[in-house]
Amino acid sequence: MPQLLPRARASQESVFARMSRLAAQYGAVNLGQGFPADAPPAFLLDAARRAVGTLDQYSPPAGLPALRDAIGADLGVDGVDVIVTCGATEALNVLALALYGPRDDGSRDEVLMLEPVFDVYLPQARLAGATPVTVPMTLDLAGGWSLDLAALRAAVTPRTRALLLNSPYNPTGTVFSREELTEIVALAREHDLWIISDEVYDELYFGEKPLPMRELAPERTFTVGSAGKRLEATGWRVGWIACPPGQAGQGVAANVAGVRQQGSFCAPTPLQAAVAAALPVARAGGYYEGLRAEYRARQDLLAEGLRGLGATVFLPQGTYFLTAIHPEWRAETLVQRGVAVIPGEAFYAQHPAPEGLLRVAFCKSRDEIAQALERLSVVATTPV
Amino acid sequence: MPQLLPRARASQESVFARMSRLAAQYGAVNLGQGFPADAPPAFLLDAARRAVGTLDQYSPPAGLPALRDAIGADLGVDGVDVIVTCGATEALNVLALALYGPRDDGSRDEVLMLEPVFDVYLPQARLAGATPVTVPMTLDLAGGWSLDLAALRAAVTPRTRALLLNSPYNPTGTVFSREELTEIVALAREHDLWIISDEVYDELYFGEKPLPMRELAPERTFTVGSAGKRLEATGWRVGWIACPPGQAGQGVAANVAGVRQQGSFCAPTPLQAAVAAALPVARAGGYYEGLRAEYRARQDLLAEGLRGLGATVFLPQGTYFLTAIHPEWRAETLVQRGVAVIPGEAFYAQHPAPEGLLRVAFCKSRDEIAQALERLSVVATTPV
Ligand SMILES: Cc1ncc(COP(=O)(O)O)c(C=O)c1O
Ligand SMILES: Cc1ncc(COP(=O)(O)O)c(C=O)c1O
Repeated sequence: MPQLLPRARASQESVFARMSRLAAQYGAVNLGQGFPADAPPAFLLDAARRAVGTLDQYSPPAGLPALRDAIGADLGVDGVDVIVTCGATEALNVLALALYGPRDDGSRDEVLMLEPVFDVYLPQARLAGATPVTVPMTLDLAGGWSLDLAALRAAVTPRTRALLLNSPYNPTGTVFSREELTEIVALAREHDLWIISDEVYDELYFGEKPLPMRELAPERTFTVGSAGKRLEATGWRVGWIACPPGQAGQGVAANVAGVRQQGSFCAPTPLQAAVAAALPVARAGGYYEGLRAEYRARQDLLAEGLRGLGATVFLPQGTYFLTAIHPEWRAETLVQRGVAVIPGEAFYAQHPAPEGLLRVAFCKSRDEIAQALERLSVVATTPV
Repeated sequence: MPQLLPRARASQESVFARMSRLAAQYGAVNLGQGFPADAPPAFLLDAARRAVGTLDQYSPPAGLPALRDAIGADLGVDGVDVIVTCGATEALNVLALALYGPRDDGSRDEVLMLEPVFDVYLPQARLAGATPVTVPMTLDLAGGWSLDLAALRAAVTPRTRALLLNSPYNPTGTVFSREELTEIVALAREHDLWIISDEVYDELYFGEKPLPMRELAPERTFTVGSAGKRLEATGWRVGWIACPPGQAGQGVAANVAGVRQQGSFCAPTPLQAAVAAALPVARAGGYYEGLRAEYRARQDLLAEGLRGLGATVFLPQGTYFLTAIHPEWRAETLVQRGVAVIPGEAFYAQHPAPEGLLRVAFCKSRDEIAQALERLSVVATTPV
């Protein structure tokens, strides 16, 4: 039989899918993959039950107009510049295909990203025919994670075409400050780079509200968002791209929509309709405030428990993950002992991972978190 | 601002999306885009309403195990060889990325397909970095469409990597015979080509039941299917790939799943669950027989009406489209006169389209078909 392309043979099961599979196999509490234990809000579910049986056929590839407008209103952009996708994963893939790849002279565009890196960024860049280049974050045991702007600047080459950033940042939990974003924008302007700003956790923050990158660099920023993350429905596959503003949907947004339609034609129509109905309700009804308060409490529960077991915990400013280091814990063995977490190495490809780094999700129930801590306390006293 | 990649600038709105937009703009009866007028069956809708609120989080990228098994049981393959996608569109895109593209020596794989060609095949091959090569079908005004096997054979080169075929065939309505498929398989074996068999209309046939390609060439055939087409829910975005059988999901299927997860991670989980519940009900309850009988009646209504207005109609053996030629009708003007159909040229990129060819959908209500015929009768007497 003919061989698959090397890029296909290199595409492996993601660490998130793998750890969820192992968690099921070993009956482990799953603090690995980032999906919430709680159900989506009733106003979202009711809207979906109404849409099913009413809006079941193809939508325009760019999305149901009502949803594009609802996202636009929520973000403060024009709905015609919004493209709806099957989750943020597809949004990122569409942007990779549209913005960077091989050039006619045989060279490959480079795309700059930070390490630890959200795992799909690398294979998506490679599938697009571009070269991903990562710049490591600095991890200080006392001070936590910080951005090395000089290293970012030094990594730009004449082939760099885009910066791909994530804030609030999975897995570090970093929310970049206005000063950091301003410097990043200056770098992007100097070298005429696109900015892909992955803001799927935009409503999940614990300190100051994250500043959207598009406010600082509207002309070059693509904002990526996810209804799955915002509305606790990761399996619904409704995400979006807010493109740099065009003239009534002409320009960049129309081209991005063109690429998008080759990927999966459109996002699930009834679920799009439900998200369109839910976004203004979530905003007006204080849903995100409630989510933040609840996750803040679970974060405290988890962080205190981990510290009590001897882990060094790096508290996040956003996302529903924290990172931690424990001298004796390794994800591969913990899952066999009943607790699934993500190994730090999963987020490193071009630089060494900090020894013993783990990402632990707290979008899980209080019971799950308590049970995981209990199982970890046994591991701590009887090392594997 | 930096330029988009040429492949992004070339990605235009599909003719289906475009004609649906124009249909809305001109208040036209939409016999263009292939989505049904009827609602999906109640057993599917009820299952979705139950799944929403229960199965809302990520599924494994390859699909919910229950759905993979249900598809496997329906097709007579092993569920571990089935990969669930966001519609058949994504299935086709995943296969393009996995099977053909640029090679390290700078050459590009070629993929052979037939013209008229379903529109996404071409841009997907180009996005994958491969060269699409089309072979025209023969259209005889008296005898209808036929496959030119000699031309297909002559188009194979040392760079040909795959054959991409569609039966029942949109837009011609052709169902390839056992003899034709046998010759195609012989060609594929001789040159060691993959076969991508797009069988989204597998249950929509009017004569003999289509023979699945995988039964003749299991070792090299990827079967593409669509719950949207089978269950009248084109907006739900649940499709699949049945891969050549591996050893318990190892081999090709695992790699295809790896590529698939970069595209959109997984298909919408609650809708997957609903399709899993619905597939056996549809099979056991005679749903597909009912669908065929109903579409047969609407096809007759449309075909007789068109003939009465002077069109030459090529009756399909499958799909819910027919093709027709009328000396005075052009899709671009018909839509302004209140009837949207797809112009034949939309399906031709490398060869001239038959003059005046139109694709007309009959997955529309009897009322819509009758109204379209009435509007066409006015066009026929007052040419534009
Ligand atoms: C940083 C980041 N971007 C994108 C995604 C994908 O989001 P979606 O589920 O909408 O595809 C995730 C999911 O974990 C994520 O953490
Ligand atoms: C031949 C063919 N393949 C694939 C598709 C796409 O199917 P889906 O809606 O499942 O993406 C269509 C839709 O019209 C089609 O006609």
